[in-house]
Order: sequence, then structure tokens, then C-alpha cells
Amino acid sequence: MHPALEALIGAIRPLDGEAMAAARARQQQLTKPPGSLGRLEELSIQLAGIFGEPLPDPRQSAIIVAAADHGVAWHGVSAYPREVTGQMVRNFLAGGAAVNVLARQAGARVIVVDAGVDADLPDDPALVRRARLRGTGDISTGPAMPREVAEAVLLDGAALAREAIAAGADLIGIGDMGIGNTTPSAAITAAFTRLPADAVTGRGTGVTDERLAGKIARVEAALRVNRPDPADPVGVLSGVGGLEIGFLAGVCLGTAALRRPVLVDGFIATAAALIACALAPETRAYLIAAHRSAELGHRAALAHLELEPLLDLGMRLGEGTGAALAVGIVRAAAAILREMATFAEAGVSDSEQPPASTRE
Amino acid sequence: MHPALEALIGAIRPLDGEAMAAARARQQQLTKPPGSLGRLEELSIQLAGIFGEPLPDPRQSAIIVAAADHGVAWHGVSAYPREVTGQMVRNFLAGGAAVNVLARQAGARVIVVDAGVDADLPDDPALVRRARLRGTGDISTGPAMPREVAEAVLLDGAALAREAIAAGADLIGIGDMGIGNTTPSAAITAAFTRLPADAVTGRGTGVTDERLAGKIARVEAALRVNRPDPADPVGVLSGVGGLEIGFLAGVCLGTAALRRPVLVDGFIATAAALIACALAPETRAYLIAAHRSAELGHRAALAHLELEPLLDLGMRLGEGTGAALAVGIVRAAAAILREMATFAEAGVSDSEQPPASTRE
Repeated sequence: MHPALEALIGAIRPLDGEAMAAARARQQQLTKPPGSLGRLEELSIQLAGIFGEPLPDPRQSAIIVAAADHGVAWHGVSAYPREVTGQMVRNFLAGGAAVNVLARQAGARVIVVDAGVDADLPDDPALVRRARLRGTGDISTGPAMPREVAEAVLLDGAALAREAIAAGADLIGIGDMGIGNTTPSAAITAAFTRLPADAVTGRGTGVTDERLAGKIARVEAALRVNRPDPADPVGVLSGVGGLEIGFLAGVCLGTAALRRPVLVDGFIATAAALIACALAPETRAYLIAAHRSAELGHRAALAHLELEPLLDLGMRLGEGTGAALAVGIVRAAAAILREMATFAEAGVSDSEQPPASTRE
Repeated sequence: MHPALEALIGAIRPLDGEAMAAARARQQQLTKPPGSLGRLEELSIQLAGIFGEPLPDPRQSAIIVAAADHGVAWHGVSAYPREVTGQMVRNFLAGGAAVNVLARQAGARVIVVDAGVDADLPDDPALVRRARLRGTGDISTGPAMPREVAEAVLLDGAALAREAIAAGADLIGIGDMGIGNTTPSAAITAAFTRLPADAVTGRGTGVTDERLAGKIARVEAALRVNRPDPADPVGVLSGVGGLEIGFLAGVCLGTAALRRPVLVDGFIATAAALIACALAPETRAYLIAAHRSAELGHRAALAHLELEPLLDLGMRLGEGTGAALAVGIVRAAAAILREMATFAEAGVSDSEQPPASTRE
């Protein structure tokens, strides 16, 4: 393995238990019945552990949207033509896509990355150009990318996470764009969960029954031809992955190494998280699953990572839309810890006291 | 029935079908696979129907938190002493409660209402004083309030909704505070769903098994003594209700009459919604269930109203905390409709086109 990748993996440490204990204790003193804020309380404790501070304060959020093309998309695995990847990158840069709208609502920045789009993209300073290839090879007949490229895109993603955090972001969402990319995501999910292709391959953008059958056959072929080994995550990425998926896996690693939370979007982002967690299992503690996608394989991928999503709104768009929508919930959880009054501060009677009737 | 209440009920009209059709058509043209934003799309269409505009724009949100005391709370149905109601009103006014924190995060205003608190509350201009009684009677031995008071609190709630909307709020959340108020809420839910008391009575703030048994017995007694008739919603409120519950039911009616959405919080707010919808069934179309509370009876109450909540985070605090947390999702749904580019505007190929491979 590339020494820089080894160093990155080694830099990912467990959560800060002391900060978590302090946050847990504080949740008991806030003016509410213990546990009555449910998942918000758990999330606030996780954030304390991630930041290593009893009162975490994620102020700036960034959604990193990585785009790339896929050789397998020539086989009609998507309801959309392959050129939509590049067209949507232009849409992201113009601010008209769903993720732009949802990120604006959440006060989050969108960072658009060309991780391997097979199109001539506009000369826009806002576009982060990190394409090492113009799309992957056809995974149903051969590998997605050479092993050295797989390692390089992981490092590229980690480097961008570092840049974004250095620029002030302290909550990183990950999103994807790539026509055909539910196909490699299904292959990655099958590789790690050891489920059959038809259990993790869904309709993506909304393909017909006939195309779905063809798509499942492509995933089966990808697994047969490339034989991805879950014990070799770089090999899984190189064999059946995607350039944007590898890049986002790198973002997970780079963010976790700097003790910041990663808001994982839907199926493709979770496939990236599977690779990151296989490389560095401590990464998982830094992940927050934003939502449960309607895409078939997402449930299995989340279950494999033992992640429980915050939202379940039947969304299946990708782009980081679920992550953007969940930013407000993450910020709210941290704010509860920082801003709520304790029973003592507010002069509110705690439940330890007997009810009034028995005291009169 | 009071003529003003009859007029209020008569003012609640069906949603605007034309605006909904326009919103539905626009969702098909936005740069995303049709349906891929799931519940956000449905919600945007509902908002169009509520506002009567194809591009609804809820800008200012207000969470109306109504507080009141309950005679039945003398029987230890809560884990907290009865004086906590008034203490929490002070906490709301000081900005230290969970709903204050979550509303600040969402950019929403909190309107604190004394709807019948049995305590001397501070002379604070921010407190909206609408108490007609200092708490209800003990519903396990007699009625909660006289019928005229029930009608008056409904009208009070509607009047405050009108004031809030006149002051600029166009998304109204409803929240509650009242030690003991899951008990009347359970009785109201039992009355409308015709479920037995033990199927809708939960642990509220977190009572022990022994207290839960006593609480169920109180709900059974309340139903036996007052015989609430679902065909007479004012009678249900008068018999087994609460002053804050009636007030919030009035907020629902007043908001719906002015064609604005109501974000319904948890179990107590949904009990208020049950009364409002029994009085004026068209109200239901103006309701958005913010979250599914962990409180036992909430699922049955939501099912009776055929409402599917946006969030399910194991929360059970009340105060409007779930409503405040859902404000961002409602605003996001409307923003999608207003701000996303169409396929034509963005120059993105739609799925009607054959995939690129078949065109080359």
C-alpha cells in the first residue's frame, strides 16, 4: 500500500471517551426528561467524541459533491444518457441542482469536484479538478481503474477534505454525481456484505424491469470478472468501483483523521463509506448516516456499517441532497448541548423530587 | 355552538387544486429523476395547495407553545411535580428550553402562551396571557372545563394564530407544556380512535410501571365519568381535555382558515389536531406531522388522522421541539419548487431521450 495511504489510515483515532462522558452527563442535567430528545442526544454525544470537546460547535458545513463517469453506463444501466454527468456538473456550478437548493437552505457550501467526468467541463474556478481518468473502465468486462489510480483518488479525496477543513468547514457532507453509478455501488455493496447482486441492485434513476434485469447481470459479471475481495478494499475499488466513489471514500478518511464528522448521503456515498471503513474501521465512528435512500441496496449497506439514518423520506437522488437536508439536525443536536439550560440554572424541579401531592 | 366558532369552521376551505397541479407538473420538469426527492416533492405540492400558489414561500416560522396545568396531575401521573409547568414557562421566556434552542437553529420565533397555568407567572411582555382558568378540573372525577370555556379557548387559539400570521408568520408550529398532559391526550385519543386506554396511554415524562398502571386507571376513569362522544368534539375537550390542548386546536383552526400550514409536534399537539379535525375535517389537509413521538399513543393518533410524520428520532419532549426541528425540512421542500432549475433551463438531457449508446 502507498505509504501516504498507510499514514492516513494510521491517523484515524477512536472517539474521545472523556468528552463523550461529559456530554452524556450534561444531557442528564438539561431541562427535559432524560432521553426525551432521543436520537438528538445520542448524536450530540457522538459529536462530542468526534470533536474531542464536551460542547461541540460545528459552525460551517460543506457538501463535497464528486462527479465521474462510468464505463458500464454504455450498457444502458441508467434511465439517463451518459452525458448527463457533465451537464449536471454545469448545473451544480450554476447553483440550480437540488443539492444547491438544499445546501443554501442549510447554510452549507457546495464543493463540486471533477473526479473523472468524461466531458469537457467549463473553465470555472469553482470547479475542483481532480480527474485522473475520464471515467472508469467497463466493470462488467474488466477493472474500473488501475490499482495505483485507486490509491491516488483515495489520497485526493483526503487532501480535499483537509483543504475544506482548513478553510473552516467542520461538518463534511459527501455526495455523488455519475450516470450509472448505482451499478458499481451495488457491486461494492455485494462485495462487502456478500449478498447476491439482485439483493443490492435497484432501479437507480428509475429503470424499467427489463433494464433492471440487465443491470443485475452487469453487477454479476463485474463480481465474476473482478472477484473483489473485501479484505482488500483498494482492490474492491480498483475492480468494481468508481472514481467519485473512491474520492468520497478518501474524503471520509481525511475528515475522520482530522476529527470532524462526515454526513453520509445515500447509496453511492455509503458505498464509499464501506470502502473507507474497510480500510480504517475507526472511520465508522465519525460517520453520520443522513438518510435512508429508497434505492434497494442502501438498507444492506447501512446495516453492514451498523448505521441508523437520521431521515427516511423516500429520497433517492444522490448529489448529497440527503446530507444537506440533515445538516440542520446535526447542528441542532450540538446546539442542544451548548445552549439548553440545566435544571439548576433554570430553577426547574427535577424528577428526583417526589410529586407535589406527596409533599403537601 | 358559539356563532364565532361556527364561522371559523366554515372559513376552512379545501386546498387549491390548481396550484397543486401546477406544482406537480413543475416537479416533473426539475433536474432530477421524477419522484427522486420522495416526501419533499409531496410536501411541496401540499404547500402549494395550502398557500394557493404554485411556488409557495414560507419565510417566517413561529412555534406557538401553549402551557396549562391539569387537575389530574395531583394524582402523580407524571414523573415531575406540578409546579414544573410554571417553571418551564419561565425557562421558555429566558430562552433556555429545548424548543428555544431548536427554534433559534431553525430561525423560528417562539410564542409562549399561558393558556391556564396554575402559578404566578412573571410580568414579561413576551408572555401571551390567555388563561381562562388556573388549570383544568380533575378529569378522572369530573369535567376538565365548562363547555363555554372549551369554546372560548378554541377561539382564543384561533385569534392568536391570526395575530401571528398578521405579524408575518406563514408557517405555524404547535407545541405544549403541561405537567400531566399526556393523560388528557390519551383520553382524547381513546375517545376519537375508540381504542382502549391502555393502548394509548404511555410513560409520558418517564413514569414507573406502577405509576403507569395508575395513569391508565385515571384515563379509564376519565372516559367512564365524562363519556366523551367523538361526534361532539367540544364535548370531548370540555370533558377530558386540557386548556393548552384546546388552545392549540384553535391554533390549527385559525391557521387553516388563513391558508397557512400547521406543523404538528408530538402526542399532545396531535390530540389538539384530533379535536380540530373533528370540528372541521378540512383542517387535516393543512397539517404537517413533524415527527413520530416515542410516546405510546402517538402512532394511533397519527394513523387516525392519516398523517405520516417527517421525522422519527425517538423524541418525546413536547414543547414543539419536533415541530421546530421539522421547520427546515418544510422550508427545503418549498425551496426545491422555487429554486431548482428545469431540464430546459439547465440544458440537461431528460430521460425521455434514448441512452447515448443507442444514438451513436
